[in-house]
Amino acid sequence: MEALNVIHKRASLKACLTEKGISTETVTQILDAARVAPSGRNNQPTRFVIVTDKTLINTVVKEAFAEANALVAGAPVLIFVCANPKDSIVRDGQSYYLFDAGLAMENMLLAAADLGLVTHPMSGFDEAKARKILGIPEEVRIVAATPLSCPAQGAYDEAAKERLAGRTRKSLEEIAFWNSWEGK
Amino acid sequence: MEALNVIHKRASLKACLTEKGISTETVTQILDAARVAPSGRNNQPTRFVIVTDKTLINTVVKEAFAEANALVAGAPVLIFVCANPKDSIVRDGQSYYLFDAGLAMENMLLAAADLGLVTHPMSGFDEAKARKILGIPEEVRIVAATPLSCPAQGAYDEAAKERLAGRTRKSLEEIAFWNSWEGK
Repeated sequence: MEALNVIHKRASLKACLTEKGISTETVTQILDAARVAPSGRNNQPTRFVIVTDKTLINTVVKEAFAEANALVAGAPVLIFVCANPKDSIVRDGQSYYLFDAGLAMENMLLAAADLGLVTHPMSGFDEAKARKILGIPEEVRIVAATPLSCPAQGAYDEAAKERLAGRTRKSLEEIAFWNSWEGK
Repeated sequence: MEALNVIHKRASLKACLTEKGISTETVTQILDAARVAPSGRNNQPTRFVIVTDKTLINTVVKEAFAEANALVAGAPVLIFVCANPKDSIVRDGQSYYLFDAGLAMENMLLAAADLGLVTHPMSGFDEAKARKILGIPEEVRIVAATPLSCPAQGAYDEAAKERLAGRTRKSLEEIAFWNSWEGK
């Protein structure tokens, strides 16, 4: 699909998950999209823990995720986006591993949508519990996670339809300013 | 262009800028791609300051950018990605406006590449000086900036060719782990 089209069709679709398996080749394609994202000074601080073991998915979701996100356990793949802040550039108190993780995550979300798969980026989980279950070292931060799934509706467009129709975004006038802050 | 294709063709191309103008419609298409990016709890903290005034571009680049990035003054458009941290979700000491800015920036970079335009995300500038020149309030952080330009070589693929050939990225084995940290 055309990139601009995918950018506009990408939606957060945790309500559209199904347990149907996804091939390792497809998951690898999505990780490879994240791999080529830019990062501060090309430091590439972002790491990915891909959970496909059904028992492990159930455990980490039950132990570390909020009730509202419990349905994520229905996905065949759960990807955690991590980084060690010591690999990050820091400028004026801002640690850029979070920015770099965002660049990589967006590539993953778009690659998945391009392949007809649904995702849902989330950061609201118990990081310490997830870290322990997945054996992630203390110094590594888990920035975000996303389930990866075939759409329960069969087709991506069908799955995303309702969510996109109800999408709420600020207008460009509210967020884009020309030549000065709040400039028109 | 197919989204996966654009993801792999996107490169940081500050060496390929030209002063040729870009229409407001095209810049708006790129901002609109950033606008639909996801954000924590849909808070949408990201803001954009789009500098098209030639004198202002020259001033901000001369005053706030490092010598190595001085050539950015050759672009017709310079976009600053900003956020007020008080609009951000915070979890375990991590302020997600940086992550959200990364999600939005990647959409911009990909939209631009899809339209045949070159970009180069950068964070190494004097934020206080840029903030003053652009009238950005003290409490707003400037996370990153990118020039936006037609490729000096005429065609995007021609501009990106050398850079992509010299691309250095860690292998998937180094960054993607299965079912546990550093799991194979």
